[in-house]
Amino acid sequence: MSKEQFYLGIDMGGTHVKIAIVNSLCNIVEETVIDTDITAKPLDVIKTIISKASKLKNYSKVECIGVGIAGDVNCFDGSVRFSPNLPKWKNVALKQILEKLTKKKAFVDNDANTASIGAFWLDAKAKPVNLVCVTLGTGVGGGLIFNKKLYRGSSCTAGEIGHITVDPSGHKCKCGNKGCVETFVGAKYISKYAVEYLKTHKSPIIDKLVNGDHSKITPKVLSLAAAKGDKAAIAVWSYIGEKLGILFACIVNFVNPDAIVLCGGVSHAGKYLIEPAKREMKSRAFASAVKKCKIVISKYTNKLGVVGAAMLPKL
Amino acid sequence: MSKEQFYLGIDMGGTHVKIAIVNSLCNIVEETVIDTDITAKPLDVIKTIISKASKLKNYSKVECIGVGIAGDVNCFDGSVRFSPNLPKWKNVALKQILEKLTKKKAFVDNDANTASIGAFWLDAKAKPVNLVCVTLGTGVGGGLIFNKKLYRGSSCTAGEIGHITVDPSGHKCKCGNKGCVETFVGAKYISKYAVEYLKTHKSPIIDKLVNGDHSKITPKVLSLAAAKGDKAAIAVWSYIGEKLGILFACIVNFVNPDAIVLCGGVSHAGKYLIEPAKREMKSRAFASAVKKCKIVISKYTNKLGVVGAAMLPKL
Repeated sequence: MSKEQFYLGIDMGGTHVKIAIVNSLCNIVEETVIDTDITAKPLDVIKTIISKASKLKNYSKVECIGVGIAGDVNCFDGSVRFSPNLPKWKNVALKQILEKLTKKKAFVDNDANTASIGAFWLDAKAKPVNLVCVTLGTGVGGGLIFNKKLYRGSSCTAGEIGHITVDPSGHKCKCGNKGCVETFVGAKYISKYAVEYLKTHKSPIIDKLVNGDHSKITPKVLSLAAAKGDKAAIAVWSYIGEKLGILFACIVNFVNPDAIVLCGGVSHAGKYLIEPAKREMKSRAFASAVKKCKIVISKYTNKLGVVGAAMLPKL
Repeated sequence: MSKEQFYLGIDMGGTHVKIAIVNSLCNIVEETVIDTDITAKPLDVIKTIISKASKLKNYSKVECIGVGIAGDVNCFDGSVRFSPNLPKWKNVALKQILEKLTKKKAFVDNDANTASIGAFWLDAKAKPVNLVCVTLGTGVGGGLIFNKKLYRGSSCTAGEIGHITVDPSGHKCKCGNKGCVETFVGAKYISKYAVEYLKTHKSPIIDKLVNGDHSKITPKVLSLAAAKGDKAAIAVWSYIGEKLGILFACIVNFVNPDAIVLCGGVSHAGKYLIEPAKREMKSRAFASAVKKCKIVISKYTNKLGVVGAAMLPKL
């Protein structure tokens, strides 16, 4: 009987660090979580994570460590150029530090890339040859799997699909561009659009959910309201879905994937978001490429990152 | 001394079929051309091409044949589903027929894909890891080289970048979508825009070039006029270049390539097209990805297709 292989995955978010040991079937065999200390020195944060991970029962059997982190990661040397969630992290040689401290091989990548690896193994069961993962949260990110391998581009920034222009004269985006898809589909923009929409439309259901305070409207509130049949919430999702559909059409025409997998908090809107997006995509993209491409919402949003990080050595 | 290898390339256009024998350094050692008979049966066209090719001195030394053809090619079996230039060509088993008739191995692909292979070898000297070739003519096409391999997507339609939306409420495109980049940058649309522009702006230089008949304005005329310093022509190219720049930004943010190579008739506008496109790209795309990506106009537009076709077996 061959020895079972174990992988350590670390998903570094702005609030929590998820740590899990994953077997070669992508099952989490052990997991733990710590709060992210954004004020601590990077080296101390790394030491705390390793200390926590080393208490896991199977830690000694782990040969490789994979880390997913939001921000700009140099995929050639595994260093973190910067991370929006971790202001102290600037040019941190994360891979090198991890390998020195643990004597294990380490892999570091952007969290949208690790999410795409998670989607490839968990949602898509490693079947598709080409897959695009779209992360829908505060920002809109993307991870690309081409020919069953992670595609990182020539300077590790491939997959910045949230900043593809869908309306050249649209709102200014924080990236400097105008009318990026993120300025429609990013969580804050969705809330903002909903607040505007509700100035001219009534929704007793949303009003009840936020106690009449529209500044408390979030995508989660809009998803709950839509699920209760609220017309205003459904109309808002329909508008957002159309913009997302323009991005889908771009993805499908450009790279002709087998699947687009959506994950992240905003994807919980489910059919209210995805159905209008599919309609818009169909009206805009090549029929044969549309037919080939499955659009699915990840069933594993909460563990894509940590499992994908663990599986980095395999993709 | 090892035996020199020879490759036969066939570039099937709507007007001419270019045929060349290419050595492993991508130099054309022999070439010939025939008119395309669009009314003949596909099998007869293929026989004529082989007959012509077999008269080339080094034909017997050729082991592989590569064909580039406009249209929808099934990259799995090398059949031509349809070709817009060749109305009689529907589901033609081109690879199979060629192999049967010649006893040589055959490869068939879309002409934008073969152009990208040509750009990779000729313009880029096989150096870039990731390259996007943008073909600018009547239509706007694209070929993708990822990790030094041609990327075809999951149903052989990857690279349809001419139909990426740059203005969601723009003109209707023949593909069914609205505001595709092709509806700004395609040759006919450029001419149409110029005619409109000249209703409110004067250009004695263009007037002279077309003998006062604006229906004769083409991208070639506009390039000539711009080269003579004509302000109206330069302004038209500037507008077209901005739209092309939105596409460049999309390419750069999405797949972070080492290079974008432009080819085709419209690319002859040179700096008048490319400078505004670069400016627009810079204002819209991620700085590090922009910095990484060289934008070049192919120096080999007329032979990219035939050399790329010949080199199909190598990529």
